[in-house]
Amino acid sequence: MSVAIKLNGFPCKVDITADDFFFAGLKRAGNTNNAAGSNVTAANVQSFPGVNTLGVSMARIDYAPGGQNPPHTHPRATEIIFVLEGVLEVGFITTANKLFTKTVTVGDVFAFPRGLVHFQQNRGRGPASVIAGFNSQLQGTQVIATTLFAAAPPVPSDVLAKAFRIDNGQVDAIKAKFM
Amino acid sequence: MSVAIKLNGFPCKVDITADDFFFAGLKRAGNTNNAAGSNVTAANVQSFPGVNTLGVSMARIDYAPGGQNPPHTHPRATEIIFVLEGVLEVGFITTANKLFTKTVTVGDVFAFPRGLVHFQQNRGRGPASVIAGFNSQLQGTQVIATTLFAAAPPVPSDVLAKAFRIDNGQVDAIKAKFM
Amino acid sequence: MSVAIKLNGFPCKVDITADDFFFAGLKRAGNTNNAAGSNVTAANVQSFPGVNTLGVSMARIDYAPGGQNPPHTHPRATEIIFVLEGVLEVGFITTANKLFTKTVTVGDVFAFPRGLVHFQQNRGRGPASVIAGFNSQLQGTQVIATTLFAAAPPVPSDVLAKAFRIDNGQVDAIKAKFM
Amino acid sequence: MSVAIKLNGFPCKVDITADDFFFAGLKRAGNTNNAAGSNVTAANVQSFPGVNTLGVSMARIDYAPGGQNPPHTHPRATEIIFVLEGVLEVGFITTANKLFTKTVTVGDVFAFPRGLVHFQQNRGRGPASVIAGFNSQLQGTQVIATTLFAAAPPVPSDVLAKAFRIDNGQVDAIKAKFM
Amino acid sequence: MSVAIKLNGFPCKVDITADDFFFAGLKRAGNTNNAAGSNVTAANVQSFPGVNTLGVSMARIDYAPGGQNPPHTHPRATEIIFVLEGVLEVGFITTANKLFTKTVTVGDVFAFPRGLVHFQQNRGRGPASVIAGFNSQLQGTQVIATTLFAAAPPVPSDVLAKAFRIDNGQVDAIKAKFM
Amino acid sequence: MSVAIKLNGFPCKVDITADDFFFAGLKRAGNTNNAAGSNVTAANVQSFPGVNTLGVSMARIDYAPGGQNPPHTHPRATEIIFVLEGVLEVGFITTANKLFTKTVTVGDVFAFPRGLVHFQQNRGRGPASVIAGFNSQLQGTQVIATTLFAAAPPVPSDVLAKAFRIDNGQVDAIKAKFM
Repeated sequence: MSVAIKLNGFPCKVDITADDFFFAGLKRAGNTNNAAGSNVTAANVQSFPGVNTLGVSMARIDYAPGGQNPPHTHPRATEIIFVLEGVLEVGFITTANKLFTKTVTVGDVFAFPRGLVHFQQNRGRGPASVIAGFNSQLQGTQVIATTLFAAAPPVPSDVLAKAFRIDNGQVDAIKAKFM
Repeated sequence: MSVAIKLNGFPCKVDITADDFFFAGLKRAGNTNNAAGSNVTAANVQSFPGVNTLGVSMARIDYAPGGQNPPHTHPRATEIIFVLEGVLEVGFITTANKLFTKTVTVGDVFAFPRGLVHFQQNRGRGPASVIAGFNSQLQGTQVIATTLFAAAPPVPSDVLAKAFRIDNGQVDAIKAKFM
Repeated sequence: MSVAIKLNGFPCKVDITADDFFFAGLKRAGNTNNAAGSNVTAANVQSFPGVNTLGVSMARIDYAPGGQNPPHTHPRATEIIFVLEGVLEVGFITTANKLFTKTVTVGDVFAFPRGLVHFQQNRGRGPASVIAGFNSQLQGTQVIATTLFAAAPPVPSDVLAKAFRIDNGQVDAIKAKFM
Repeated sequence: MSVAIKLNGFPCKVDITADDFFFAGLKRAGNTNNAAGSNVTAANVQSFPGVNTLGVSMARIDYAPGGQNPPHTHPRATEIIFVLEGVLEVGFITTANKLFTKTVTVGDVFAFPRGLVHFQQNRGRGPASVIAGFNSQLQGTQVIATTLFAAAPPVPSDVLAKAFRIDNGQVDAIKAKFM
Repeated sequence: MSVAIKLNGFPCKVDITADDFFFAGLKRAGNTNNAAGSNVTAANVQSFPGVNTLGVSMARIDYAPGGQNPPHTHPRATEIIFVLEGVLEVGFITTANKLFTKTVTVGDVFAFPRGLVHFQQNRGRGPASVIAGFNSQLQGTQVIATTLFAAAPPVPSDVLAKAFRIDNGQVDAIKAKFM
Repeated sequence: MSVAIKLNGFPCKVDITADDFFFAGLKRAGNTNNAAGSNVTAANVQSFPGVNTLGVSMARIDYAPGGQNPPHTHPRATEIIFVLEGVLEVGFITTANKLFTKTVTVGDVFAFPRGLVHFQQNRGRGPASVIAGFNSQLQGTQVIATTLFAAAPPVPSDVLAKAFRIDNGQVDAIKAKFM
C-alpha cells in the first residue's frame, strides 16, 4: 500500500542531553488579547519533546481581568493547578451532573478529574495565572463551545438545536460568533 | 474520624454463579418519549454487577424518529457501536476540532475514541437502535448541554455567556429549557 | 543486523477520515458451512485498522443449527456478547474449574472474563448470531481443539495422550480429523 | 442487601515485617506421584501474601521421569522459566496456531507469552525441575484437559464431541478418566 | 486470622464536595531551617485525600540559600518542576550512569523521569522554590543518604563500606551525623 | 529535521521461531572477580530480545565469598529472587525508612518492591547465586554508589558532601575509588 503512515506516539531522540528535559517556554505570560481573555501555553510532548513516554506535562494559563479558560475537557489527563497570581472561580461538573466550584487565590491547589468538563474564570480585578500539571505527555483539549460550534466541517445545526433546545437560527448565530 | 467512607470501585460477591454474568436488561427498547427522543439502557457495573473488574460494558440506545443521543463524552471509555435498526448520522470531533461524521445503517460499526465529544442523530423515517460496547466497566457520561446548562448548582451564567459568546439572558433561556 | 523487523503494534495513517472509524464487514452473516457450523467475522485492528490504539473491537458470530463456537480463549480481552438471533448455550470455566453456563436468547447479554476457556453452542432450531464486544484492538483467539490437535508443527502425540489420558492412537485419530 | 461481599484483590497487613516478603515453600520438590507426574508449588499471593500489589510471583515445578506439566494457560501472566534440573521439552502454541518448541536443560531460560497454551514434558531419564517467574501476583491457571473434561458441573459432552470431532462416548470415556 | 488488615490504597469519602478537591497547604514556604536547608510540602493523597484515584499530586519545595533537596528517588512517579523563585542546579542520573544537569531560574521547567536519582541545589544568593507535579497520587520518596545511613534498623555497616569503598569507621561516622 | 530518532521500545522480528524465546546465557556463573565480588547476568530485552513486549525478564546473580550486590534500585520492576546456592543477607528499605532484612539460603524466595533501594550480601563461606524474576522486559538498574560517585559528568562534590554530611575532600576520596 502507498498509504502514508506514522508511528503511534512520538519518536525518541538518539543523543539526548539535559536540554531535552528543560523547557523555558512557560517563563512569560501568554497573550490574553483574545475573545476568551486567556491563553494556555503548553509544555507537553508537542512543544517539549523530552516528556515523551514520561507520563507528565505542564501548562501555564494566563487570564486577563474578566478572562476565562472556557469549559473544556482533557480526554487523557487529570489536571492539578497551582495559582501563581490572582483570584479565580474554578469548577468541574461530575458525571452525576453536580458542579463542584471554589474560589482560589495565590498558592491554592485544585484538581480536575480526568475527562470531566471544567473551567476557570478570573474573578479578581487584575490578571491571574496558574501552573497546571497533567498525568499525560499530551493531555488533549476539547473546548466545548468551539468543539460544537466551530468544528470543521460544522456539526449539523439541527443536531445542536435539539441538544441545546434552541432553534436552528440561534445555533447559526452562535456559530457565526466563532468564525 | 467519623467520615463515612466507601470502597474504591465496587465490591465482589462471594458466591458467584452464571447468573452474575448474565443480563437481560437490553432485551427491550427503552422509552424514547422524552426531549431528546432517545434512551440509553446501560449494562454496566451499576446495573450489571458481574462486569466488575472485567473492563467491559454494553449499552442499548434507542432513538425515536428524529431523536438523538445528544453530544456527550465518556471520560473512561472508547465506544464502538453496531447498528441494530434504522439510519443514523453519527460523528465525533477530534482535539484538532475536526468533525468525523458518517451515516450508518443496520449492521454497520463505528468507533468513538475515548473522551471525545460525539453524537448520534436518527436520520431515518422510523425508529433506530444500536448496541454499544465500551472498554470500561463504567464508562461515565457527560451530556454536554445538561452538564453546562442543567448542573446543580448551576454553572454561573456569565461563564457560559462568555464561553458561547451569547448574553446572560440567552444563557438563562437555555437553562430554563432544562428545568 | 539484516534481520527483518517490524513495529510493535500497528502503524497509524497520516490522513484519517471518518471512513477509518467505520466498518461495514459485520453487516452480513458469515458462512457457517464448516465443521464447527459457525463463523466469526472480526472487526478488529487487522480488518478494521481504525481501532488501532483505541482498546476496543467487535465481532459477529453466526451459528448454523447445531453449530458451535468451540471452546477457546482470548489471551488479551474480556468478551461481552449481545444475542441478535436464536438460542445459545454459553459458558466459561473458571480457574477453580467451575463451569458457569446459561441459555441465552435474543437481546440477552453475557460476559466471558479475559483469558478463560468459553464456548457458545446453538441450542435452537434455527440459526443464531451474536455481536461480541472486546476490550482490546486485537483479542487473539486460541481454539483449544485446533491449538492442541492441529498446530504446525504438531504438538507431540505422547504429550497430548498423557494430558487427555488417552493413548497415542486416539490422539492421532483426533489429529487426523483436523487435517 | 444481605449478599456477602469481599474486597477486590487481597487486603494488606498493617504491621508488615521482612518475613512478609520471604517464602520458604519452594525449598523442596513437590510430590509428583500423580497422574501427570508433576507438581506445581506456587509462591503467589494466595500462599505468599507479601507479593500483594507487587505484580510478581514465582512457582517451582517438579517433574517425575516421564512426567509433564500438561497443556495449560495463565490468563493473567507471562511465564519465564529457569531449569534447575533435568531435560524438558517445552512449547507454546501461538494465536496463528504455530507450535514453538525447544528442548531445555539445566540453566536454560524459556518464555511463555501471556495467555497462550503451553506445556513442559520431562524428556530426561531422571527428575526435572524449574523455577518460574510470573508478572502477576496471581497468574491463574487453566489446565486444558481438566478444564474441559473435569469441570463441575461438566461441560456438555456434545459440545466437546463436536469440538474435538469425536463421539459422545469417547468424550465420556475421557471424562471418566478424570473422576 | 486476627491479623489487622487495611485496604489497598485509600478509601473514598461518601459525600464529597468541592473542598475535597481544594488544598491550601502549598500557600506558604516550608521551614528550611534544617540540615538540608530545604523543605518539601506535599499535596498528595496523604495530605490532600481528594487526589485519591486521580493519578496526580503536587509538592512545593523551598530551599534556603545553599540549601538542597538531596539526591533521592520517587519509586512511583515522574516529577516535573516549575521554578517559582531563585536559581537552582538540578540534575538526574540515567541508568547508563550519565548525569543530566542544568541551571534553572524563575519560570523554567525541568523533568525527572520516574524512579531515577535526582537532586536540586540552590545556587543563588537568596531563597528558591519550585512547584512539582507528579503522575501519581503518592509518589513515594527515598532520600538516598538517609535511606542508606539512617534507616531503622540500620543497614549493616560492612554492606555500606563495601558499597562505597570506604571503611566501617567512615560508615559509622556518616551514620552518626544522621542521628 | 535531521535529528536522529529511534523507536520507543524495541522492534519486533518478522520471522520468529522457538529460539527467540530461548536463552542459554544464564547457564554459567558470571565472573565475580571485581570490586563488588558479584556479577549480574541479565536475560532482559537487551540480551534476550524475545521478551520484547512480554513484561518479564530474568537475571542470574553470582556472589563470591564476601561479595555483594550493592544497594541499588530498579526503576521499572519488582524483583523476586530464588536462591540457587549459598547464604545471603538480603534487604530493602521502605519509603518510611525501615530496613526489612532477612538471611536466605538455598530454595528461599524474597521479594523487593518496585523502585526501592535493596541489596544482597554473601554471608556464607562459599559462593552464592540467585535467579531473579522481574515484571518488566527491562528493569533498569541504578547502583547507588556508582550513580552518585561515578556518574559522567560527575555529580558536584558539594552536592554530595551536603547530602552525606561529609566534606568535599571525603567525597573526592570516594569518587577516586571508583575511577
